[in-house]
Amino acid sequence: MSFQNPVFIPGPTNMPEEIRKAICMPTIDHRSDLFGEILHPARAGVKKILKSETAEIFIYPSTGTGGWETALTNTLSAGDKVLAARNGMFSHRWIDMCQRHGLEVQIVETTWGEGLPADRYEEALTADTNHEIKAVLATHNETATGVRSDIAAVRRAMDAAGHPAMLFVDGVSSIGSMDFRMDEWGVDVAVTGSQKGFMLPAGLGIVGFSPKAMAAVETATLPRTFFDVRDMSKGYAANGYPYTPAVGLMNGLKLACEMLLDEGLENVFARHFRLAEGIRRGIDAWGLKLKAATKEVESDTVSAIQTPEGFNATDVVTHAADKYGVAFGVGLGEVAGKVFRIGHLGMLTDVLALSGVATAEMVMVDLGLDIKLGSGVAAAQEYYRNTTNAA
Amino acid sequence: MSFQNPVFIPGPTNMPEEIRKAICMPTIDHRSDLFGEILHPARAGVKKILKSETAEIFIYPSTGTGGWETALTNTLSAGDKVLAARNGMFSHRWIDMCQRHGLEVQIVETTWGEGLPADRYEEALTADTNHEIKAVLATHNETATGVRSDIAAVRRAMDAAGHPAMLFVDGVSSIGSMDFRMDEWGVDVAVTGSQKGFMLPAGLGIVGFSPKAMAAVETATLPRTFFDVRDMSKGYAANGYPYTPAVGLMNGLKLACEMLLDEGLENVFARHFRLAEGIRRGIDAWGLKLKAATKEVESDTVSAIQTPEGFNATDVVTHAADKYGVAFGVGLGEVAGKVFRIGHLGMLTDVLALSGVATAEMVMVDLGLDIKLGSGVAAAQEYYRNTTNAA
Amino acid sequence: MSFQNPVFIPGPTNMPEEIRKAICMPTIDHRSDLFGEILHPARAGVKKILKSETAEIFIYPSTGTGGWETALTNTLSAGDKVLAARNGMFSHRWIDMCQRHGLEVQIVETTWGEGLPADRYEEALTADTNHEIKAVLATHNETATGVRSDIAAVRRAMDAAGHPAMLFVDGVSSIGSMDFRMDEWGVDVAVTGSQKGFMLPAGLGIVGFSPKAMAAVETATLPRTFFDVRDMSKGYAANGYPYTPAVGLMNGLKLACEMLLDEGLENVFARHFRLAEGIRRGIDAWGLKLKAATKEVESDTVSAIQTPEGFNATDVVTHAADKYGVAFGVGLGEVAGKVFRIGHLGMLTDVLALSGVATAEMVMVDLGLDIKLGSGVAAAQEYYRNTTNAA
Amino acid sequence: MSFQNPVFIPGPTNMPEEIRKAICMPTIDHRSDLFGEILHPARAGVKKILKSETAEIFIYPSTGTGGWETALTNTLSAGDKVLAARNGMFSHRWIDMCQRHGLEVQIVETTWGEGLPADRYEEALTADTNHEIKAVLATHNETATGVRSDIAAVRRAMDAAGHPAMLFVDGVSSIGSMDFRMDEWGVDVAVTGSQKGFMLPAGLGIVGFSPKAMAAVETATLPRTFFDVRDMSKGYAANGYPYTPAVGLMNGLKLACEMLLDEGLENVFARHFRLAEGIRRGIDAWGLKLKAATKEVESDTVSAIQTPEGFNATDVVTHAADKYGVAFGVGLGEVAGKVFRIGHLGMLTDVLALSGVATAEMVMVDLGLDIKLGSGVAAAQEYYRNTTNAA
Repeated sequence: MSFQNPVFIPGPTNMPEEIRKAICMPTIDHRSDLFGEILHPARAGVKKILKSETAEIFIYPSTGTGGWETALTNTLSAGDKVLAARNGMFSHRWIDMCQRHGLEVQIVETTWGEGLPADRYEEALTADTNHEIKAVLATHNETATGVRSDIAAVRRAMDAAGHPAMLFVDGVSSIGSMDFRMDEWGVDVAVTGSQKGFMLPAGLGIVGFSPKAMAAVETATLPRTFFDVRDMSKGYAANGYPYTPAVGLMNGLKLACEMLLDEGLENVFARHFRLAEGIRRGIDAWGLKLKAATKEVESDTVSAIQTPEGFNATDVVTHAADKYGVAFGVGLGEVAGKVFRIGHLGMLTDVLALSGVATAEMVMVDLGLDIKLGSGVAAAQEYYRNTTNAA
Repeated sequence: MSFQNPVFIPGPTNMPEEIRKAICMPTIDHRSDLFGEILHPARAGVKKILKSETAEIFIYPSTGTGGWETALTNTLSAGDKVLAARNGMFSHRWIDMCQRHGLEVQIVETTWGEGLPADRYEEALTADTNHEIKAVLATHNETATGVRSDIAAVRRAMDAAGHPAMLFVDGVSSIGSMDFRMDEWGVDVAVTGSQKGFMLPAGLGIVGFSPKAMAAVETATLPRTFFDVRDMSKGYAANGYPYTPAVGLMNGLKLACEMLLDEGLENVFARHFRLAEGIRRGIDAWGLKLKAATKEVESDTVSAIQTPEGFNATDVVTHAADKYGVAFGVGLGEVAGKVFRIGHLGMLTDVLALSGVATAEMVMVDLGLDIKLGSGVAAAQEYYRNTTNAA
Repeated sequence: MSFQNPVFIPGPTNMPEEIRKAICMPTIDHRSDLFGEILHPARAGVKKILKSETAEIFIYPSTGTGGWETALTNTLSAGDKVLAARNGMFSHRWIDMCQRHGLEVQIVETTWGEGLPADRYEEALTADTNHEIKAVLATHNETATGVRSDIAAVRRAMDAAGHPAMLFVDGVSSIGSMDFRMDEWGVDVAVTGSQKGFMLPAGLGIVGFSPKAMAAVETATLPRTFFDVRDMSKGYAANGYPYTPAVGLMNGLKLACEMLLDEGLENVFARHFRLAEGIRRGIDAWGLKLKAATKEVESDTVSAIQTPEGFNATDVVTHAADKYGVAFGVGLGEVAGKVFRIGHLGMLTDVLALSGVATAEMVMVDLGLDIKLGSGVAAAQEYYRNTTNAA
Repeated sequence: MSFQNPVFIPGPTNMPEEIRKAICMPTIDHRSDLFGEILHPARAGVKKILKSETAEIFIYPSTGTGGWETALTNTLSAGDKVLAARNGMFSHRWIDMCQRHGLEVQIVETTWGEGLPADRYEEALTADTNHEIKAVLATHNETATGVRSDIAAVRRAMDAAGHPAMLFVDGVSSIGSMDFRMDEWGVDVAVTGSQKGFMLPAGLGIVGFSPKAMAAVETATLPRTFFDVRDMSKGYAANGYPYTPAVGLMNGLKLACEMLLDEGLENVFARHFRLAEGIRRGIDAWGLKLKAATKEVESDTVSAIQTPEGFNATDVVTHAADKYGVAFGVGLGEVAGKVFRIGHLGMLTDVLALSGVATAEMVMVDLGLDIKLGSGVAAAQEYYRNTTNAA
């Protein structure tokens, strides 16, 4: 009697029925024209979701982590300097990857729970008068802390500093769920994966390269083959791939793009805001606080909930899984044991969201927290019933 | 973004993932031995779930209604007299079927919401000194009113009257979810379908015939071919079928039986009681009443909830579907507009049940009923968290 | 490593991927509007495939056998006389059903392998000056012998005799694969099932009733409830059903109709002819004969192949299943042991058809028949490669 | 009417029904214990299929190409020397990858169609008295030419030379289909993917590292993060993963291993030999030659068939796809236009193999080659029917 409850992890998300079916397709010849009918629409769909007119889209049988590596190895050379803020586990890991690839990272340490500090980016870039910094890294949505950052502000900081560095954005847990504007924000590499806003299983690393990033490919000397965008470009031009593609997942991606674009991106974002806001009302009713420091940085895809001092937040996740068969997310890195996370991205409905809130309540009461059963649910219900359900 | 919420109709139920996959099988030759490996275990599984050592099990590409017709046409002749109580829509329909097949029905009119009146059965049978009544019909669980009846008591009534009639039981919405004891209760024909306790789609009518019912087949003259158990018997003996069987559904039935028997029937019944009781606690917290007249007759598979005078209960169902994408059951027959129903049978978890309770709350508040948001959820949560979850 | 070879039984057929997915849908509320969006297009699609403007279409959770019973019980009364030719197992079974339902059958015995004798129908009808015959039964395609009959000729015979009887046609193994013209041929009840031309699993009995047949419903007194078209009509008018429908199968039927109509019925028929003809060329190359007596009556959905005197044709089927994992059809009734059958209806391609021919060849050589390996394949290849493949 | 014919490309293969279903699973929490129940058995299964007692198994959301990169970047440093023979497109590509990662490759040029020249490996290794060669690369099965090499002979060459280099083997199109003995042959890194012998879609790069390779990880300085086996090791030790795993594919891999091991590896290899040999008999009957230079090097997973001078072999592939909806493989690299390939690995049956042979025949006759229809089929039939079918 398993597999029946929805998951509330911040990706992979619950999958729409249609997408599961699109993925589960029979084997086709990936060197036939039929593959082109999957590849090209999938890339075109991603491009629209990135709100870009000019990006080159590359889809790897990989994950968002592979997307990070694609961004770095195709545009930079050993010893290059990059600027990055660290405000959570995923920005930390991308920095670590830079270092392991021989890049010099100028780290802007930021309190976990806060958004990326555009002012300190500006400061650092202004100070870099020799323009040694080749790329600025920015995590749009910190999945570990449930914090959304203002990428437009980072772009403004770069422009204010008159700095020519490229802007690389990790949009793994934002793209397809929250507003992302590749062209308007001057993003040079956008990175995401299949298992979040696209509502697919993990298995695809998806990146968009601006013309400026494409130009950088020519001079970048970090070693790469699997993630080399030049091989991908060459393959795509011939309806093909440099190696065997994950055809079913790409077919699912094609459908996911169609579904999101048919719904309308602004409607998709509004839907995620609504679902998130209902859950936030519930959290507020419990008397608990988000890790997100301010209202402005609250993520619409994942909420990291701080539990009281002396309480192990990880117990919430373990107990929910063991007793109720429901998956929440644990705290990672420096918030391990201090927060638990409710993912509310991708395929979800208000009705299913309520079951997550109700479960979290039972769990916390079971574990002795001073929470009133039904309190968070009531707050979420009140919000949901008074707002329009796009479904 | 459809198909994602669970349904709360009293069948077809939500389906376990494994069962959906078992049904969705490639075409096989139904005249091959492979079919026997589906047919025989499916029949053996049903027999165990009926708690019978002696029943012959027949599985029709049909529904529970076809099961009713199988019971009647294989054992009775035009003009035969049957005794039946009418306490809801489904007992009413079976009576109607008897009449359309030329049977004379002695009807024990019973208030909807009450269980079958064993004393009045006894009275009628005692009065039938010539033993003109050939069969007694009993609806184990009235899906329309959420009322469970005491079949053992009906059997005791028959025995007390010393009456030789056969006992036919409609267990469509009880078998596989609530305790059913074919042999112990002396049931001669048990009728059910695939889409309730067996957690399959509709499409199978499933019946068990006692040796006494099998004997009656020889003399019964109601015309029948499709539903003739003699053709089925002959087919089964040769690993076959009198016509093309619904192989995938039968493969699902085989798996469903395995799942239920592996869990243990008493655990299955306890699970259904627990899920139902949580929902009943919620209903009580709302200050609403079940249609079931007494605690004893409350069904563990469906709850029919009475709404206040002057309120159209059907609006709950329509509004839930339109605004929240959730399916509840309408009132049928004489309780149309007076009750709405929450189905809680087959595949369901406490977590999903809470989403149903939460939805019903929102709907009723939307429609102006004096219900406190979160109140029913809190009562159900309290019950669920304090009872063992077999999942 | 099972389930991988195609089947070559004359139904259930191999299923298209898309149809399997359409069937395998989550539970929906069959009392919701959503069901209407499945029911009505499915009925409209069937109507077009029957080439009827006026028929009422009824879809039962049942099989073609249930469709036969629907035809009889809704239009006739005990003691009514029907005229039927017996030229194979399926016409035999329908006659048997008539008799078991108390109808008087005037049987036109016809040599198995021959088509329905329109001249003898005319003779019998002309002789029936009192118009006691209420219905004429005609099996469009005898699945047991691979014989197609000329229904237009039967209609002409009825007209020539000036006889007002209704015309009931069993199109189970023809409709959706071979030309069927309900209105033009004056068919009053057309019967089919889901598992043949519609490429679905078994589980639906599908019937079309002409206005004349609908009128007969009012006076027919054979007992019926499950198969009563009046309940169906009433249900459909309210987007519903008299009992729980087989929603997934009906969703598959809706898609199957779309696929067939998108391809174009004449193209569908041409495809079946082409597939059949290739196989017939192979059979001819083997030096074997069809059971079909003449070219005109050769079925495009199933070929019944006569094996030499003294050879048990059933061994072909058993050996093919045991050694090669391929399913052919056995001979039934009076051709049991004398023919084996290759089904070539529904989802099939020339490439897969060749694997069937190749398998049959190996089997026959294994069993000692004087067949040259590759001979039938070569003849079929030659035909297939010289004809246009609609795929 | 697409997707119905089997594919005859040398991977991705046709998929068993059960494996497709295992992959298509609902979302689970990859940080839960449930994931461990997939991860560990999948790794253990792969280990057995590699015939290793000591290897560490790593499974990447990637492909065989990613597996190559995993092998190189985890064990080598820029400037390191590797020895590799080039006898086809895939050995060529691995060499190219080495060069792009800054390795110095000593290339043993080998005629395409021949196996790896163990004697020349020995010569080169013996000459390398300073042991500058850190690794020897060997492609077990050249998918481009249908050539299997003798890895045991390469090991013997290394031993004869007394050379301590590591041995890296590309077993992408051999492992799981042809005998592979990691420990016995002293393989240090074995590389494969999901879409060949494991009968899954593309999407997993699978590698086995010997203890010696694991030791090399500590000193290797090629930059790596996504493919770093140290992160994987750390993750596995905690039932987890360094990033989001492709859970469904891994669940499919677990099942694939169970299926292969249940069948028995030697039976699996015999099955592939039998299927291949039948097809080779057909090719011989056509009067065509394999690209494989000798019987010893004929691959049991793919046959590359040479077409006559002046004929464009690629037309076979295009025509087969366009007219018959069947996928064969084109020639790659220096055999482009000179060979076409029939893949016969993974899920396939003799019956389906015959459909491939039959299709190739029709195609070649259509294109004007002097081939007798049915000739190849007859030869394959004769072989298949006289050999035991493990199915």
